[in-house]
Amino acid sequence: MDEVAHLHSGPAATGAGLVAAVVYCKGVKVADIDLAEAGDWAKRPDHVVWIGLFEPDVDLLERVRVQFSLHPLAIEDAAKAHQFPKLEEFDDSLFIVARTAQLEDGRLAFGETHLFVGEGYVVSVRHGPSRSYSFVRERAEARAQRLSEGEDFIVYAILDFIVDNYAPVLDSIADQVDDIEDHVLETTVGQHEIEQLYTLRRDLLRLRNVVVPLQDVCRRLERSDIVFIDPAMRPHFRDVRDHLRRAEERIDTLRETLAFAFEASLMNAQMQQTNISRRLAAWAAILAVPTAIAGIYGMNFEHMPELKWEYGYYVVLAVTITICVILYWRFRKSGWL
Amino acid sequence: MDEVAHLHSGPAATGAGLVAAVVYCKGVKVADIDLAEAGDWAKRPDHVVWIGLFEPDVDLLERVRVQFSLHPLAIEDAAKAHQFPKLEEFDDSLFIVARTAQLEDGRLAFGETHLFVGEGYVVSVRHGPSRSYSFVRERAEARAQRLSEGEDFIVYAILDFIVDNYAPVLDSIADQVDDIEDHVLETTVGQHEIEQLYTLRRDLLRLRNVVVPLQDVCRRLERSDIVFIDPAMRPHFRDVRDHLRRAEERIDTLRETLAFAFEASLMNAQMQQTNISRRLAAWAAILAVPTAIAGIYGMNFEHMPELKWEYGYYVVLAVTITICVILYWRFRKSGWL
Amino acid sequence: MDEVAHLHSGPAATGAGLVAAVVYCKGVKVADIDLAEAGDWAKRPDHVVWIGLFEPDVDLLERVRVQFSLHPLAIEDAAKAHQFPKLEEFDDSLFIVARTAQLEDGRLAFGETHLFVGEGYVVSVRHGPSRSYSFVRERAEARAQRLSEGEDFIVYAILDFIVDNYAPVLDSIADQVDDIEDHVLETTVGQHEIEQLYTLRRDLLRLRNVVVPLQDVCRRLERSDIVFIDPAMRPHFRDVRDHLRRAEERIDTLRETLAFAFEASLMNAQMQQTNISRRLAAWAAILAVPTAIAGIYGMNFEHMPELKWEYGYYVVLAVTITICVILYWRFRKSGWL
Amino acid sequence: MDEVAHLHSGPAATGAGLVAAVVYCKGVKVADIDLAEAGDWAKRPDHVVWIGLFEPDVDLLERVRVQFSLHPLAIEDAAKAHQFPKLEEFDDSLFIVARTAQLEDGRLAFGETHLFVGEGYVVSVRHGPSRSYSFVRERAEARAQRLSEGEDFIVYAILDFIVDNYAPVLDSIADQVDDIEDHVLETTVGQHEIEQLYTLRRDLLRLRNVVVPLQDVCRRLERSDIVFIDPAMRPHFRDVRDHLRRAEERIDTLRETLAFAFEASLMNAQMQQTNISRRLAAWAAILAVPTAIAGIYGMNFEHMPELKWEYGYYVVLAVTITICVILYWRFRKSGWL
Amino acid sequence: MDEVAHLHSGPAATGAGLVAAVVYCKGVKVADIDLAEAGDWAKRPDHVVWIGLFEPDVDLLERVRVQFSLHPLAIEDAAKAHQFPKLEEFDDSLFIVARTAQLEDGRLAFGETHLFVGEGYVVSVRHGPSRSYSFVRERAEARAQRLSEGEDFIVYAILDFIVDNYAPVLDSIADQVDDIEDHVLETTVGQHEIEQLYTLRRDLLRLRNVVVPLQDVCRRLERSDIVFIDPAMRPHFRDVRDHLRRAEERIDTLRETLAFAFEASLMNAQMQQTNISRRLAAWAAILAVPTAIAGIYGMNFEHMPELKWEYGYYVVLAVTITICVILYWRFRKSGWL
Repeated sequence: MDEVAHLHSGPAATGAGLVAAVVYCKGVKVADIDLAEAGDWAKRPDHVVWIGLFEPDVDLLERVRVQFSLHPLAIEDAAKAHQFPKLEEFDDSLFIVARTAQLEDGRLAFGETHLFVGEGYVVSVRHGPSRSYSFVRERAEARAQRLSEGEDFIVYAILDFIVDNYAPVLDSIADQVDDIEDHVLETTVGQHEIEQLYTLRRDLLRLRNVVVPLQDVCRRLERSDIVFIDPAMRPHFRDVRDHLRRAEERIDTLRETLAFAFEASLMNAQMQQTNISRRLAAWAAILAVPTAIAGIYGMNFEHMPELKWEYGYYVVLAVTITICVILYWRFRKSGWL
Repeated sequence: MDEVAHLHSGPAATGAGLVAAVVYCKGVKVADIDLAEAGDWAKRPDHVVWIGLFEPDVDLLERVRVQFSLHPLAIEDAAKAHQFPKLEEFDDSLFIVARTAQLEDGRLAFGETHLFVGEGYVVSVRHGPSRSYSFVRERAEARAQRLSEGEDFIVYAILDFIVDNYAPVLDSIADQVDDIEDHVLETTVGQHEIEQLYTLRRDLLRLRNVVVPLQDVCRRLERSDIVFIDPAMRPHFRDVRDHLRRAEERIDTLRETLAFAFEASLMNAQMQQTNISRRLAAWAAILAVPTAIAGIYGMNFEHMPELKWEYGYYVVLAVTITICVILYWRFRKSGWL
Repeated sequence: MDEVAHLHSGPAATGAGLVAAVVYCKGVKVADIDLAEAGDWAKRPDHVVWIGLFEPDVDLLERVRVQFSLHPLAIEDAAKAHQFPKLEEFDDSLFIVARTAQLEDGRLAFGETHLFVGEGYVVSVRHGPSRSYSFVRERAEARAQRLSEGEDFIVYAILDFIVDNYAPVLDSIADQVDDIEDHVLETTVGQHEIEQLYTLRRDLLRLRNVVVPLQDVCRRLERSDIVFIDPAMRPHFRDVRDHLRRAEERIDTLRETLAFAFEASLMNAQMQQTNISRRLAAWAAILAVPTAIAGIYGMNFEHMPELKWEYGYYVVLAVTITICVILYWRFRKSGWL
Repeated sequence: MDEVAHLHSGPAATGAGLVAAVVYCKGVKVADIDLAEAGDWAKRPDHVVWIGLFEPDVDLLERVRVQFSLHPLAIEDAAKAHQFPKLEEFDDSLFIVARTAQLEDGRLAFGETHLFVGEGYVVSVRHGPSRSYSFVRERAEARAQRLSEGEDFIVYAILDFIVDNYAPVLDSIADQVDDIEDHVLETTVGQHEIEQLYTLRRDLLRLRNVVVPLQDVCRRLERSDIVFIDPAMRPHFRDVRDHLRRAEERIDTLRETLAFAFEASLMNAQMQQTNISRRLAAWAAILAVPTAIAGIYGMNFEHMPELKWEYGYYVVLAVTITICVILYWRFRKSGWL
Repeated sequence: MDEVAHLHSGPAATGAGLVAAVVYCKGVKVADIDLAEAGDWAKRPDHVVWIGLFEPDVDLLERVRVQFSLHPLAIEDAAKAHQFPKLEEFDDSLFIVARTAQLEDGRLAFGETHLFVGEGYVVSVRHGPSRSYSFVRERAEARAQRLSEGEDFIVYAILDFIVDNYAPVLDSIADQVDDIEDHVLETTVGQHEIEQLYTLRRDLLRLRNVVVPLQDVCRRLERSDIVFIDPAMRPHFRDVRDHLRRAEERIDTLRETLAFAFEASLMNAQMQQTNISRRLAAWAAILAVPTAIAGIYGMNFEHMPELKWEYGYYVVLAVTITICVILYWRFRKSGWL
């Protein structure tokens, strides 16, 4: 909520959830506008209205719907998070759902962004933790020429921003995977490593669910069958998709690497178990010698001639030690000790 | 059976298995009708007959078949449960099979719903445990405008209801997975956890069989090639399919999470086994010292000078304890104890 | 061979391997015929010749080939079993290979059926263990109207019969899987369960090879591109395919269930191993106490004051027992015993 | 090399690597020819030149290339083995690569065959261990009518021969799998079985790489898009592909069977380990009884009244034996011994 | 950097990062040129400019962009490594990304090559460790006829070179896999083997990411839809793709082989663990005999008649040894020792 407050700067922004409502003409900001006049501005030639919302309530979405005559189903979807990434075409508008990912205090946090796009307007709706698009807006305003390309460019700029934000998340996971890789191969795996391995695998799985379905959205934006999209923008959407493919490749590589690490650690654990069993067996064998011999000469038979020999004790001690040393040496040689 | 009794309220409902038979005109209920007149009502323009059956016998189905001239093969299928989710097109009707899922006393229970759809009529047939469609009917009746769209809307309303009912089932499974996740990582896995893990995996597998084939049904309803379906309804079927894709994604994520949990628990068990073996080996080594020494001085040799020393006993005790303490300290340092 | 004898009833059946040769007109049996006149009968309008063979020799097949001018390659295939399920189109005939499955003394047994279909004739060739088609023939003869649809209907009736026979096999396997499921989770897995698990997995794999490729045959019969097939028969082949898909789904579910059961049993075994090791370690620790103490007071030092105390023995016994009880109680509390 | 010598019989075969060069007209052998005149013979209507090479050097291939104006890239490929199975179309010729498999002293050996096909000629090039095609040639010559179909038939005959030769290899592997199946389930797995299991899995993997890509070659020969291939030959290539599919199915079934066997053997090993641990634990418990009791009565306290009882020794022996017997009986009952 | 210096020989190469800039006419080198005149040279008919860059800075890339009016997005991509292998078509140019792989001090090192291709020019940009293309250039210059085919041939020559360089990497990995195969089956797996197995699996995974996506690039170059590519060059790109498919097949085979080796080693470890446990159990049983007997006759009862027998000691010794020998012999027979 305080993020909204923080971003809530435009004078025309008239309610909680409305972050900004700006109209641009040929790439130049014309005015901060009131939501009630957004529909009219969007209809003027060469003008583009860009409205930013953050977790809007049903009321606000209904007001947006009226301005641009959006489809009720899309509005229904935008009111709640947990949508599947998708691109839906309606008669005169597009509805796009994308998922965002970022690190918060070292933990993965996912959000969602919904976009309504039509002739002369883009409405972006953010849900959950995600970086504000005021940064995208500022950068776009600074490049008037490109912004003048209109709503396609705004869609591209937002998607590009979302996809760029996956990279630091992946970098952080990759670092942790490198880290665990060393642990698994060199030392014994403990509670902590198992938990870390588990968490990394689950995070990568979730990240994959963010990255993979978005490719389909970009693929459709890249193709010719959508009317709004200027063919000149297609290489840009292709570029976004290439980043997504690269991200997917990295995710899959990390996933397989963790699977290998898991198997290596299982082998390691087996090997250690075998080694310990061997040592245990070897020491048990060595110590069985004095136990057995001492047991025999600890018997209370009256007629045990050795017990009366003057050097019996020393002979027995020497024999015992000799056998133990030989055993130790042989176990050592065969790698059991 | 008592569910049927409970729902059995329309005066025209004339037999066991027949839950309701109602005719609507422009979204407004016209009358509860007798099955024998259903065919005629269906032929009147702007009228839609909606018949609800619960586990009907062959007789009842035959009477329905005659009214709407349905294909014998579809009727044969509708008489028995355990069909594969599908959409079959006949010359002048559709036959749809969907599976339902719900929780009963905390356990997953599956049912089936079969739909016959044609110009002016929808026949819904429920098998096994599933929530009654009287709720769907009431809600639809409350929205006369949408119900006036006719049989397409009724099909949509039923499918949407079926798919919405998957969500609480999935939520419950997701809670259990979260629960087991903690157990597997923190404590030792016991009989109970293994059973729970197994049951969850099997339930998710079954739920997947419910969710995945239904997407194909929606995909075909969404496309243009079926005559009955008003193109304006397509976004609604697309919406149902999106929910199914989201459900599938959740199922697959939970399945993989459980697979990871299984592997983490295997690693955990290996680690514990190794730790126990180490402890066992360490204590065996420590206790071997007094055993060996006591054995030696328990021998009955006549000439064992140490036995005659005044402080022999104390020296031996001290040496023994010292060795044991040193061993203990070294095992401790190397993490074996 | 005695099955042939048993089925061999038609007077016109003239040799080993020939089970029946009958000509039908408008669904009514006209005559048992001799193989040599089969070709002529088949050419008469509205007449259908249905020839049933069981493991025929090359000679018999050649005689059949001549009657209907079949393709030599198909005849070559029909002479030997172990074909891949397929549908081959030749200029004026179809060649279909299907696999049959049934239980014999509780064990899975597979057979093969080859069908030659053309204008006015169907030749069915059975190999290996499979139920005779005399049952199909009788049922078809009892439904003259449907049989009058000709060769398409006969093909459908045979395929439907083959697919229906998979169901009891699957039911039996499903029962065994349910059975093993309980064993794996509740008791220790032994030699017998491992063997049963292995056999079930192998049987399901084989059954899958029977069921899956046949779907492709049905899919092609269902489509428009084959001339012989009356479009009105398509829903029937679609129905057969639906049964196959359902069977495939069941097989895959059972396969995954067994995989889960295998993993659960591995976890179970690990857990038991850990429990046994813990118990072993706990008892070893407890028993080490009297051994060590008794060892010490069994030493033969002359100066061991405790040995001379009047209640020394009782004190030592009491101390030993106390330590053992405390250890036992602590191991009990921590779940090791 | 001696295989070449052995096959090297035609008078016109003029160098190492050239096995045979024969021209046929309407299925009848016309002459053994010199390589230098092959191109001219191939151009005569109704004449087909069939040249067989075995591991030819670059020179020989160049001479072949000149005769039939082959594409340099294909010739470059034919000079070395280790090509991927493929069918390449050039303007007026086809280049086909297939892999061969056979048993040599019980071990799998792979070879390669390259075919150049064009109007009026077939050039076959063998690499590595593979059966000579002189057998194919003889059989083809014996069937003049079919050989008269020209180059398509020769290609078919060679591919069919290659694919037929996979069968004995698969049979041999299947026998070994059956063999290991019994070992894994009944007895303890040793070094030898592990090695055998590993080798079988690797061999099947290699065999799969031989069989699977060849299907694509046959699929393309079967389709209409290649000019040289007479449509009447298509069923024959389809037949070869069916054999390949059957071989693939067998390979995949064997692979999965071995995977199941591996898992069953792992379970078996786990079970045995658990059994041994139980026995070890049970015997340790039983033997701890006399050790502890004997230890106690071996202490040298002066005041131990039991030691002075006349029947103390017998009582203690009896008690010890009784406890041991009871323990033994209980362990027996619970299946630990 | 010193690699650049080493290759930096052309007089016209005017800055860090520019390796060479040469213009060819009909396959013959015309001149080393300055970057500023490259655009003009490229426009002359039958002239081709080939510019080689190594890790260029943004400035240099901008100068290249201006000369050939390249698309800004492609230039942006070329400035940084870590692109996904791809082929992008712009209005009048192609942008190709390929990954290179080579061994450096026995370790896998990956690089990237970016190619800009248009009428009359090829710009190659190398990133990271990869062999210089001066070798490709020299070989191309030596074959004037082929080089005269222009920019297509240069693209082919570079891709072919890149793909050829994968072979020694794969050979080296294959050798290591053969090596580890023997270790895993014959001896006990240790820390070193586990690490090696892990590293090989990870390297193969990375190599796969290099090889697989490049096939798609070649497939598109092979097809007709790209304007620049002379149809006569298609067999060459098909040839490159065949090498890629062969490399992929080898990678996948090696990956599966390592997976089998991992499983074999797991089985081996299990077997060894079982063997050690058996030996441990057997020796424990054998040594329990003298311990128990000696314990009994070490008791201090006053009335133990055996102790007074003259040959008691010898009888007991003999009995003990006999039992031990019998036990040893039975364990030996049953394979436990």
